Amino acid sequence: MIEASPIDALRALLGPQGLLVTPSDMAAYETGARYDQGRAAFVARPASTAETSAVVAYCVRNGIALVPQSGNTGLVSGSTPDASGQQGVLSLDRLTGIFELDRVNRSVQVGAGLRLSDLNARLEADGLFFPIDLGADPRLGGMIATNTGGSRFLRYGDVRRNTLGLKVVLADEAGTVLELGTGLRKDNTGIDWKQMFIGTSGAFGVITECVLNLEPLPRQTATAFLVPSALDRVPDLLTAMEQALGNDLSAFEGLSKNAVTAALSHVPSLRNPFQAGIVPEFVILAEISRSNLPRAGEQPLDAVMEEVLGAIFEREDALLADAFIGRPQEMWALRHALSEGVKHLGRLIAFDLSFRRGDIMRFLDHMKAEMPKHFADVLICDFGHIGDGGVHFNLVVPKDDPRLRDAGFETALREWVFSVAVEEFHGSFSAEHAIGRKNQAFYDRYTPHDIRRLATDLKAIAAPGPLGSVTF
Amino acid sequence: MIEASPIDALRALLGPQGLLVTPSDMAAYETGARYDQGRAAFVARPASTAETSAVVAYCVRNGIALVPQSGNTGLVSGSTPDASGQQGVLSLDRLTGIFELDRVNRSVQVGAGLRLSDLNARLEADGLFFPIDLGADPRLGGMIATNTGGSRFLRYGDVRRNTLGLKVVLADEAGTVLELGTGLRKDNTGIDWKQMFIGTSGAFGVITECVLNLEPLPRQTATAFLVPSALDRVPDLLTAMEQALGNDLSAFEGLSKNAVTAALSHVPSLRNPFQAGIVPEFVILAEISRSNLPRAGEQPLDAVMEEVLGAIFEREDALLADAFIGRPQEMWALRHALSEGVKHLGRLIAFDLSFRRGDIMRFLDHMKAEMPKHFADVLICDFGHIGDGGVHFNLVVPKDDPRLRDAGFETALREWVFSVAVEEFHGSFSAEHAIGRKNQAFYDRYTPHDIRRLATDLKAIAAPGPLGSVTF
Repeated sequence: MIEASPIDALRALLGPQGLLVTPSDMAAYETGARYDQGRAAFVARPASTAETSAVVAYCVRNGIALVPQSGNTGLVSGSTPDASGQQGVLSLDRLTGIFELDRVNRSVQVGAGLRLSDLNARLEADGLFFPIDLGADPRLGGMIATNTGGSRFLRYGDVRRNTLGLKVVLADEAGTVLELGTGLRKDNTGIDWKQMFIGTSGAFGVITECVLNLEPLPRQTATAFLVPSALDRVPDLLTAMEQALGNDLSAFEGLSKNAVTAALSHVPSLRNPFQAGIVPEFVILAEISRSNLPRAGEQPLDAVMEEVLGAIFEREDALLADAFIGRPQEMWALRHALSEGVKHLGRLIAFDLSFRRGDIMRFLDHMKAEMPKHFADVLICDFGHIGDGGVHFNLVVPKDDPRLRDAGFETALREWVFSVAVEEFHGSFSAEHAIGRKNQAFYDRYTPHDIRRLATDLKAIAAPGPLGSVTF
Repeated sequence: MIEASPIDALRALLGPQGLLVTPSDMAAYETGARYDQGRAAFVARPASTAETSAVVAYCVRNGIALVPQSGNTGLVSGSTPDASGQQGVLSLDRLTGIFELDRVNRSVQVGAGLRLSDLNARLEADGLFFPIDLGADPRLGGMIATNTGGSRFLRYGDVRRNTLGLKVVLADEAGTVLELGTGLRKDNTGIDWKQMFIGTSGAFGVITECVLNLEPLPRQTATAFLVPSALDRVPDLLTAMEQALGNDLSAFEGLSKNAVTAALSHVPSLRNPFQAGIVPEFVILAEISRSNLPRAGEQPLDAVMEEVLGAIFEREDALLADAFIGRPQEMWALRHALSEGVKHLGRLIAFDLSFRRGDIMRFLDHMKAEMPKHFADVLICDFGHIGDGGVHFNLVVPKDDPRLRDAGFETALREWVFSVAVEEFHGSFSAEHAIGRKNQAFYDRYTPHDIRRLATDLKAIAAPGPLGSVTF
């Protein structure tokens, strides 16, 4: 517990609404979305950049560690306090007071505490949206601090690509406020400092506002499930679809049989779309979309999909075993239910990996062969974003498996998966979830010495205060 | 002149081909593309990352300033030595030995000394290209150090968006080599250090290799010249075109009457495409393109353009005075001849500005009204990238104007234009040309104190050696 005087000081800065100290008020901020339970010394809820600056300055000067918390939907223990009870949570949830839409510039300046769903609801009437498509509903500051990607990365890129400006409070004794970009799309007048706060898990500063690129809402969509003739044909299938569809291809997601079967078994609203109900070994959800309303002379997108798939079926190299067009809403419902479905199978041990696009299927194939040799009875329920090289590599162990009582089991499993992914397949140990306490050891292990040194030095000069859950 | 021993030391590191010291050999490296004439102490031409590291380490340890030079096509005195004769040029022109194409990943790893045109020539057979469209033909390292944008930014973004990895030699006593990214599209495992070298004019390190995102070559294109009914309708016209065309719109370029007239007068191969030869006050070159070969059921792009323009003509808010579809090659030839044409009119004083998209036309309008009040007989010959907010704001003064003999005239003109663009219109003083010696004073003036301090500190810890033409 922090002694009374800091609490009084913080309350004076933030007002009664701005500071939570009772266990019942703090509980929601101490519990992570999927994992994690910590203890907070207090929860500070500034309502403006100025209040955020005051809190950060006070805490840095007094050596009080702060963990910024955005939507608290992360999966790597990035935004929850540790068990010590010594860390304060700095919640973004009241930083929602700004919303300045610039229609011609296709950009919006907003408080970092706004939820993605609220942002898009406010933009809908203008036919615009922030094009990061996720299962969860995070707040914007956390999306920026983790640089999330999601299911339409292939078309729209990640948060980094869509961030035009940030307002941040540096973790220094002054709580220095930096305004980094104001909505210009081209501006090369020095170091692009906003990059330091994107994907760095909140270690350098607290994001209080952002200027985001917006895209026209999709107005036409067609989706299909593609069954590749063999797993090693998936890369060529991706290339063929890109060549045939160009920038109309907006998603190319991979769904494993285990993940699909789990979802169909445990999410009652889903319908089994496969012939005779037999789930294939691996399925691709392909989406094409356009943001214009259909024109008189325009070929409907279902017809485009049909023509393109027909041509691929006729190829001599037999990429496809089967393919069928379906209703986008149903197909995406199955895709988005995978995570929920897999959780019902047992104890989930999840990895958010990425590879060069040509390496994903080789990695999956390798793991299917090697897993039983290293760890018996571990079910691989992968799914992910083949189009951009990301794979949610989910492992499930029966809930009553006695190995789960041994903390060393999960550690050994994680170490082995990461060593194969990073060392043998030159992949990333965190594609779009950033670092967090959960990945700290792997950052320390896999980051080259010279780069770690630079990060430590930059932290020391730019933002020396104790902020966030990651040590650079 | 550097005394004999450093020359001998560098020659020992680089071999005879790798070091130029005679005036005739060095002349091409001492002369800028449009402005500038400096004097080099030597020209080092390393042929590998290891040689680059050895040169940088030697020079940093011995206090010898190096200016990295890529294609030497920049316009801000970023890559030429100053007049002192004390700076060495570090040319990238022999760093061309690597070319590793990954078709499935749509990426290529290449030496930073490769020219853009050579890269694209080697990719053509695979139906891919590096999607930065420029009038000049730079080498890749310089494109990264300036973060160039170009004419298809609207579709493909800038160099930053398309850079997946860099190999760099830090300006430190060890010539530390950093490998930053290897082609992954999603990787959030710490600070994205490659961003420090993108758009920072070569001050932190020498880029020796890069991994670039590639895009499928456009296979269908349609272009039209649009004449807005009034200048202030251009922003709404852009919005209307984006809504109607979505991601098919790949360029929306603005051409002023003065620039078009200059090009038509001075570039004999051009044909005047306008009715009765009368050049409108302002013209938009709009392009739509797709990267798939035409499908049987697909509406041809000329018909798409016709349908979309027809619908815009029917709108009650009368955005368009005229519009006509033309051959892409001819229309782009006119667009690309503007720079050449303007140069013939007199002494060119060029600015590379950017604004929020809604502010460009307001800025141009303001300047047309204010210029005569501040500076008589200065012709505004602007053109640029309305779709991304960039404008090449070119001013022309008659070659025999006596004011040109007074160095204070150009300085006063520059100061005034920048003050209006940056202070009144919140624009950028360098959209896509980066800083260079030419913009150093404006970096110093317009960069907030806290951000300059961070940059200075970062330079000191990460890359303290004297590298490049910009002081951070």
